[in-house]
Amino acid sequence: MTTFAIGVDLGGTNLRIAAIDDSGKTLDKITTSTEVARGRDFVIDEMCTAIQEIVTRLRSAGQLAGIGIGVPGIIEMRTGMLRESPNLPGWDNYPVRDEIERRLHTTVVLENDANAAALGEKWTGAGATVDDMIMLTLGTGVGGGIVLEGKIWHGMTGMAGELGHINVEPDGHPCNCGSRGCVEQVASATAVKRMATEAVASGKAPQLEQALKQTKEFSSKAVYDLAMSGDAPSKAIFDRVGNALGVVIADLINIFNVPMYVLAGGVASAWDAFAPAMMERVRKNSFVYRATAPAEGNNSDKNTGRVTVVRHAQLGSDAGLIGAARLPMITAPSDRVVAGFRNV
Amino acid sequence: MTTFAIGVDLGGTNLRIAAIDDSGKTLDKITTSTEVARGRDFVIDEMCTAIQEIVTRLRSAGQLAGIGIGVPGIIEMRTGMLRESPNLPGWDNYPVRDEIERRLHTTVVLENDANAAALGEKWTGAGATVDDMIMLTLGTGVGGGIVLEGKIWHGMTGMAGELGHINVEPDGHPCNCGSRGCVEQVASATAVKRMATEAVASGKAPQLEQALKQTKEFSSKAVYDLAMSGDAPSKAIFDRVGNALGVVIADLINIFNVPMYVLAGGVASAWDAFAPAMMERVRKNSFVYRATAPAEGNNSDKNTGRVTVVRHAQLGSDAGLIGAARLPMITAPSDRVVAGFRNV
Repeated sequence: MTTFAIGVDLGGTNLRIAAIDDSGKTLDKITTSTEVARGRDFVIDEMCTAIQEIVTRLRSAGQLAGIGIGVPGIIEMRTGMLRESPNLPGWDNYPVRDEIERRLHTTVVLENDANAAALGEKWTGAGATVDDMIMLTLGTGVGGGIVLEGKIWHGMTGMAGELGHINVEPDGHPCNCGSRGCVEQVASATAVKRMATEAVASGKAPQLEQALKQTKEFSSKAVYDLAMSGDAPSKAIFDRVGNALGVVIADLINIFNVPMYVLAGGVASAWDAFAPAMMERVRKNSFVYRATAPAEGNNSDKNTGRVTVVRHAQLGSDAGLIGAARLPMITAPSDRVVAGFRNV
Repeated sequence: MTTFAIGVDLGGTNLRIAAIDDSGKTLDKITTSTEVARGRDFVIDEMCTAIQEIVTRLRSAGQLAGIGIGVPGIIEMRTGMLRESPNLPGWDNYPVRDEIERRLHTTVVLENDANAAALGEKWTGAGATVDDMIMLTLGTGVGGGIVLEGKIWHGMTGMAGELGHINVEPDGHPCNCGSRGCVEQVASATAVKRMATEAVASGKAPQLEQALKQTKEFSSKAVYDLAMSGDAPSKAIFDRVGNALGVVIADLINIFNVPMYVLAGGVASAWDAFAPAMMERVRKNSFVYRATAPAEGNNSDKNTGRVTVVRHAQLGSDAGLIGAARLPMITAPSDRVVAGFRNV
């Protein structure tokens, strides 16, 4: 009999639930909207009902290993509470894990959504051949996930992997985090749109101005399309994105020397537009990269040697769901002890 | 019967050897110069003779756990070879570990010197209360050591922890590593001297000019003394040092969320001159720090809570020796397998 687990991707907009077996195969899937406005208890009721529905359907298929839930926000691993979640108002300091465990009588593991996505890519996606990898998710913001020896590195308060707030432009654009010039202010979808709007305001980007007029909601995809068609101001924006990502990835290579760095999220789809500047910067800034760079043209190949690979994610928006399902399969009860204080 | 180990700090100038027991107590110590010019075989002969001398003296004191050797350079952990060591010419790609094991018939563990120093501080120094810490050694260059769950993080080719090459000034001073504006180009002793020389050349630093005239070899200590006496150009140099260290430490806190960041090496002794700017920058750039900052005035106290502490190292130049002795006590044969490829 196989083992399977339930993965939940609890976003501020969508609630997605899947049953995934221990080989990574999706057995069942439900997608619904997260009715955040109806309150925390309503959402938890809906989620539990949907999980029970799937589990009932799969009763004969295998053994349930538990439930993993990816949520946007900072998780207190020890207590299974959401410390802070701007997209889930009213959930702060609520014992999410314990409440769902109480209702469903099975192991529940809560995880930050960027971490869950990194774990998904590590399991069946871009990082399937390695034990250690780092992922940057370029979405509305820039999220990060660090996988070391097959497990998410959480740090002492679950706040590790805030890679979007690595500094790249000392006097750069102010960031919500209180700093300036974080990579999130250059390489997120929000930043691409802001830089495009700034280019339009400068009066020197007629094609971007045209694109902005044609649409109610300006997208980073529109900037990408222009960059790929050769529009210089749009290309300059993605050069800046690539340069900032290159600085961060070079820093991460010099720090971790792990074999794989994965870029996910909407902006990562603009790979062709930013990757040349990014890889030029990585090569220039990191002697560790130069000492371990794969042979020319081999960068997106399956990584089987001791080389450093920077590549695009493979699982798209399923990464978080797959990673969430992986959580109960690899999390031991002792993992609820926080890092940093084992020998105090 | 206690267990003890031999720690060796094999520098380009000094060769130091100590016997240290498993409680961290130094039982015996030999310091001699490293006669690099007489060649690799001569140095290894000298080292082995000195180790045998100590082991003979301590024969009745306890059980020898093995020998740990800290060397400047990049170590290939799997093979125990020095990949690259600018300070030990002729040692590249020589099987140091196996040769000494063959001669002395005991376990030998080779480690990068900055890593060994970090491990020493972790064992009996600034990091003794935590399991996870990061150390920056501000010497001629800037070295780094990352201790996670009590062990050095090596990465896949032993090149992890190159923290001196984290970027802090995008268009800054060229670095030997091929990049520009690495923290090593702002916060090393070499950088402090260079910035002081630049200040003198600007004609606006009369006191530094005076100090430079009085001495054959200008030191970062001289710049520190002037900064503490209130000389504005000297203070500006240490503000820049502090700011650069603050950017790096804030990045590391956002990445790792470990409880302790330790500064060692000569420039770290100028703590009073650079720490105010450094801590202001850490607080500003890292929301993870702000969420975990110790109560005011508590920064140098023993770290017993879930707080982020940035502090000065405690063991001085003995850290590398103590950490080297710790190596054979905590290194399992399986640790010779490199990270990153366990499940390939």
